[in-house]
Amino acid sequence: MRILGIDPGTGILGFGVIDAGRQPKLVDAGVIRTRVHQAESERLLIIYNALQEIVKDTKPQVVSVEKLFFSRNVTTAMSVSQARGIVLLVAQQHGLPIAEYTPQQIKMALTGYGKADKKQVQEMVRLLLKLKDIPKPDDCADALAAALTHSTQA
Amino acid sequence: MRILGIDPGTGILGFGVIDAGRQPKLVDAGVIRTRVHQAESERLLIIYNALQEIVKDTKPQVVSVEKLFFSRNVTTAMSVSQARGIVLLVAQQHGLPIAEYTPQQIKMALTGYGKADKKQVQEMVRLLLKLKDIPKPDDCADALAAALTHSTQA
Repeated sequence: MRILGIDPGTGILGFGVIDAGRQPKLVDAGVIRTRVHQAESERLLIIYNALQEIVKDTKPQVVSVEKLFFSRNVTTAMSVSQARGIVLLVAQQHGLPIAEYTPQQIKMALTGYGKADKKQVQEMVRLLLKLKDIPKPDDCADALAAALTHSTQA
Repeated sequence: MRILGIDPGTGILGFGVIDAGRQPKLVDAGVIRTRVHQAESERLLIIYNALQEIVKDTKPQVVSVEKLFFSRNVTTAMSVSQARGIVLLVAQQHGLPIAEYTPQQIKMALTGYGKADKKQVQEMVRLLLKLKDIPKPDDCADALAAALTHSTQA
């Protein structure tokens, strides 16, 4: 099963595609970057177009998204939610099921410990995918972590 | 100038198209409805497809969106932001400029009083567009109010 993992954000959106299995395999990973001086609508269109390309190129069967909780910063919550809306839209346009995992679920699935720190999770991403280095930037490793989490649930 | 006004929301999204001018004219207005039992992604796709139709059919030159502030309910903020993200995306796909007005700016523009109540604003929508009745539901009247606000600023 091919899984597209997403770490949503407007400034930088991480994606990571893996083939699940006894030995999960990295297919593609990277980030979609937008710039601060761009209008929100421009940034959302860049994300939309890039996601369309990624889905067409890598043909995932399911999308696994890191679920975000916000308790305080409503402005950030609104901005990330807009990007998340675009992710859900593209998944639905391609008829892809969507799985969502909280940061805690991702930590638990990858390290066995719900309060693991970011570095431990990233190191597990590297080990599970048998990579030489931890994928950079963080958003990319986080997206792969979301994809790997879904592979453990399937 | 043809203006598409939008009152964003996931359950119900109001739209209203007017031709600005000394006597503004109603072109089209209504709501996009989605259902509670539908997945978020389905609802966003319904909104996306409906907005595409509206833009193609009515050919607006600018989109005027009611800007939302949330201080408390982050869940609502996130849900409405996703819908707003779709609105911004569609506008950008068609190269349409986006204007945003706070509820207070809309109240001020239409009634001359920033703390006017909903009913007064809706009555002004009716009067300005020379309609027999206030457009229903409220989301539709609110969308027309956003469009009319932009027409007073242009």
